[in-house]
Amino acid sequence: MRSHYCGQVSEALLGQDVQLCGWAHRRRDHGGVIFIDLRDREGLVQVVIDPDTAEAFAAAERVRSEFVLRVSGRVRPRPEGTENPNLVSGKIEVLGRALEILNRAETPPFQMDEEEISEEIRLRYRYLDLRRPVMQERLRLRARVISYFRRYLDAQGFMDIETPMLTKATPEGARDYLVPSRTHAGSFFALPQSPQLFKQLLMMAGFDRYYQVVRCFRDEDLRADRQPEFTQLDIETSFLDENDITGLMETMIRGVFAEVLGVQLPDPFPRLPYAEAMGRYGSDKPDLRIPMELTELTEVMKGESFKVFSEAANAPRGRVAALKVPGGGERLSRKQIDDYTAFVARYGARGLAYIKVNAVAQGREGLQSPIVKNLSDAALAAIIERTGAVDGDLVFFGADRRKIVDDALGALRLKVGQDLGLVQGDWAPLWVVDFPMFEWDEGENRWMAMHHPFTSPRDGLESVRDNPEAAVARAYDMVLNGTEIGGGSIRIFRPEMQTEVFKLLGIDEEQARAKFGFLLDALKFGCPPHGGLAFGLDRLVMLMAGAKSIRDVMAFPKTQTAACLLTQAPAEVTEAQLRELNIRLRRTP
Amino acid sequence: MRSHYCGQVSEALLGQDVQLCGWAHRRRDHGGVIFIDLRDREGLVQVVIDPDTAEAFAAAERVRSEFVLRVSGRVRPRPEGTENPNLVSGKIEVLGRALEILNRAETPPFQMDEEEISEEIRLRYRYLDLRRPVMQERLRLRARVISYFRRYLDAQGFMDIETPMLTKATPEGARDYLVPSRTHAGSFFALPQSPQLFKQLLMMAGFDRYYQVVRCFRDEDLRADRQPEFTQLDIETSFLDENDITGLMETMIRGVFAEVLGVQLPDPFPRLPYAEAMGRYGSDKPDLRIPMELTELTEVMKGESFKVFSEAANAPRGRVAALKVPGGGERLSRKQIDDYTAFVARYGARGLAYIKVNAVAQGREGLQSPIVKNLSDAALAAIIERTGAVDGDLVFFGADRRKIVDDALGALRLKVGQDLGLVQGDWAPLWVVDFPMFEWDEGENRWMAMHHPFTSPRDGLESVRDNPEAAVARAYDMVLNGTEIGGGSIRIFRPEMQTEVFKLLGIDEEQARAKFGFLLDALKFGCPPHGGLAFGLDRLVMLMAGAKSIRDVMAFPKTQTAACLLTQAPAEVTEAQLRELNIRLRRTP
Repeated sequence: MRSHYCGQVSEALLGQDVQLCGWAHRRRDHGGVIFIDLRDREGLVQVVIDPDTAEAFAAAERVRSEFVLRVSGRVRPRPEGTENPNLVSGKIEVLGRALEILNRAETPPFQMDEEEISEEIRLRYRYLDLRRPVMQERLRLRARVISYFRRYLDAQGFMDIETPMLTKATPEGARDYLVPSRTHAGSFFALPQSPQLFKQLLMMAGFDRYYQVVRCFRDEDLRADRQPEFTQLDIETSFLDENDITGLMETMIRGVFAEVLGVQLPDPFPRLPYAEAMGRYGSDKPDLRIPMELTELTEVMKGESFKVFSEAANAPRGRVAALKVPGGGERLSRKQIDDYTAFVARYGARGLAYIKVNAVAQGREGLQSPIVKNLSDAALAAIIERTGAVDGDLVFFGADRRKIVDDALGALRLKVGQDLGLVQGDWAPLWVVDFPMFEWDEGENRWMAMHHPFTSPRDGLESVRDNPEAAVARAYDMVLNGTEIGGGSIRIFRPEMQTEVFKLLGIDEEQARAKFGFLLDALKFGCPPHGGLAFGLDRLVMLMAGAKSIRDVMAFPKTQTAACLLTQAPAEVTEAQLRELNIRLRRTP
Repeated sequence: MRSHYCGQVSEALLGQDVQLCGWAHRRRDHGGVIFIDLRDREGLVQVVIDPDTAEAFAAAERVRSEFVLRVSGRVRPRPEGTENPNLVSGKIEVLGRALEILNRAETPPFQMDEEEISEEIRLRYRYLDLRRPVMQERLRLRARVISYFRRYLDAQGFMDIETPMLTKATPEGARDYLVPSRTHAGSFFALPQSPQLFKQLLMMAGFDRYYQVVRCFRDEDLRADRQPEFTQLDIETSFLDENDITGLMETMIRGVFAEVLGVQLPDPFPRLPYAEAMGRYGSDKPDLRIPMELTELTEVMKGESFKVFSEAANAPRGRVAALKVPGGGERLSRKQIDDYTAFVARYGARGLAYIKVNAVAQGREGLQSPIVKNLSDAALAAIIERTGAVDGDLVFFGADRRKIVDDALGALRLKVGQDLGLVQGDWAPLWVVDFPMFEWDEGENRWMAMHHPFTSPRDGLESVRDNPEAAVARAYDMVLNGTEIGGGSIRIFRPEMQTEVFKLLGIDEEQARAKFGFLLDALKFGCPPHGGLAFGLDRLVMLMAGAKSIRDVMAFPKTQTAACLLTQAPAEVTEAQLRELNIRLRRTP
């Protein structure tokens, strides 16, 4: 039906006949002639219909926005002065000879070049929203990114293998999506949160290098960066250590940025141990584009009489740290500081002490702050020296349990950095490594796996048993601009170690068998050393596309408003269906 | 950890040091020396450990089947007379210098080169079953096939776009898998049986060419060629007609056969109208490798006095047809004919009349059959002439409602063809086209869509309204060796036509809105002409791999015995989980 895409008609085709199909982006009548901007996924071309071609002209008069057209005509130069340098086809136009209306359109709720459209309307008319060039570009970028990954991994000997979507429900997985079984009364499948067990089994099956672009599911409430179904690039390898794996992966990420965005990422990526990341940035996914770091003050404050600082410094899991804001003394108003105080309160901080550095040379007198009077000269000197503060800077303080200080100052660092426009450069990837194996869950009063229970410790079985707090995991996260885009680990590959880790996590033998029996059996039959990782594709593509929400890089996302997406909202089902599934609805109390 | 895969160590590496990782496929002690066949996904290599390397020798003595090993050594020629021409590495061996046992293995339930293993055992130890070279090859073939499709479609401008897995349940979709919603009490998502609606919406969104390798779900009972979750290569295009689409697709299929199997398929594929396929083969997915066809006898038998034939011939939807079996008079025993009679009874045939052609020249006397006496000379002559039967042949007859005759003789044709070894050639692809739009459902007493309700009729709205029985669909199936491997259609793209077809199918406006409102709305805003198809990847790969069951081309299939696959069986969940999902179990009556 067509010879070219609209967006590909250029001077190269001058004088040639073309057949085009597309949507009427805009129609104008001008000087007795009709101009139609015809649009397809590749772009726009201007079609001119003059009254000489009476039939085409009559059809063109009926054309409205978003009508679907087929046009035959000849490519000719635009009259001088009417070129559009923003279009590939900006120097030419098509003099239409025939115009067929393939389909009509009601007046659309928004124009395809509108920019400010409410998300509610966009999602309700998603088929129109996706026609907009910006959305076409985003989904094309997504396809190009995924295509690059596949080609890279195929070339590296990775095998694309599909794993099941209907898997075994585990009694604790409260936030799995469950699927009632028709044939096994009272039993449920679960949709996978990740193919973790399956990819490990594939390594035990000797496939050596596996990947899959795979849908995963988590029954959690919606957020801008979270969808109940999301896509992972899932990877596992055998006989490779963490340096091999992270090396292969950062080469892949450099490759995709170069091919798709024309961006050169650093080679190699910086590697930051977890402890250092928390110490310097208060975060295990630091945004390195912000040139501010935390300053450690815990030791310094241990002997101070100011209890807010000294108690935190002396507590077993306490921390005192500072965040110096260059020029903050001048640039931050009292009101802004109050706002930041409210901001850090969200992370549990009970206040936000600060010092304005007016004149370092004046010592104590040159520092403006409610807390200066509480601190010794030595402490003040240490603060100035360690933060490197100069006149005009402002120093914020955190003093509390380590987790609160890290969270509060880590988040404050990002916020102040953005507010003051301190973000430097476009892309800052890094690896965070040497994670702790376990973290203590205060609420549940037990150890939890920081990564997951299949992560290998760096040292032997004793390290786990005797000092779990200090045990280091062979885990690694890839972080980009403050977002974790991927993460993985070397896995446990010996049954004794797996049993020991389960035990420490409070999973007794019976539970371990019920939940992971298949894995434990498989470990006994010659499991190779293996490890891998998973990338969150939606987030990575969102960053690469410069989009604000992962919804903008998915064709049909879920939304809060079920009405927006009739094809995807849950719906009522019949009694007969429920009966066949051996379930009934619980009456609302 | 390694320098080469085991299966890639060849004479090219003679004299070089290699590091290998893999599994101990077999260990033999011979003349004071230990031989280990080391296996990885690329193949086997023979490792020799002699007592000179005491440490390695001591380790080698502890090696058992399926231990995971790391070996360093030097590649040397095998002693003359011990070469193995079946291996890439058959002319060399590796003299091991160091051998490390990376992991132990319990005695496996079967050897990796065993061939006769029960499927129950294979599935219970799937991680071991998948280590077997035959399964490695099948899954590798699957990955290569999918990779080819992606590369072909990418090159043709198709965009890989993901569609949702959690979609809207429709009240009639009794065999959808349903997923209770936690946040919308009493509502359920459905897992998609295909992304049909979404891909049509993507065309309305202007993406022009879409594809996706996508998991689909059907809650049906298990069979050798059916799994509750299966994979489709799903495709949709805009502004192309059926010739464009089938042309693109058969080029793709020819390409994958050439690249992956080195097989040249015909160009172009034969195209068979549905009516002709049913007439000549009694099937809309004929296996053209079997050189037998049905012979039409309906007209001939209308005037006969033999009621079995004449009543069927005169009934409005009746048919009389013959299947000539070349040489069948000599090769088929009475017992076999009886078995075939029982066989066609499964398809509703109330008997299986036949004539043994002993001597054509003798006329009526040369024909041996209980029915010869009931047929006129003219009928007998017509049978001989039309079937082209010669001495030694056997002719089977079907006379009943057309559907029964087609099903019975169609199936008999396949069975006799296989039993007598008449199958010719390896690959016989074709297109079946010009399907009817509708078929009459006797049970429900209404018209059903033969393909699906979005399929476009060939002719206008009136053709559907006035004579639905004769309406021809713009649908096409790709058939390979008697299996439908793909199918699709040009879709309805105008709202009036869609409404008309819904009406004919007994879907009133309210139901249409409830089920397909999103589609009907979208059709109003400039829907382009579009069409596509879907390939059943599991079946296609099964055929290409020469496997008997689709389970053999899936890493983790479902099975009848839940115990076989602990990672995939449905399981009981807790009361708390059920409560959160607003459902309860129905007590068994």
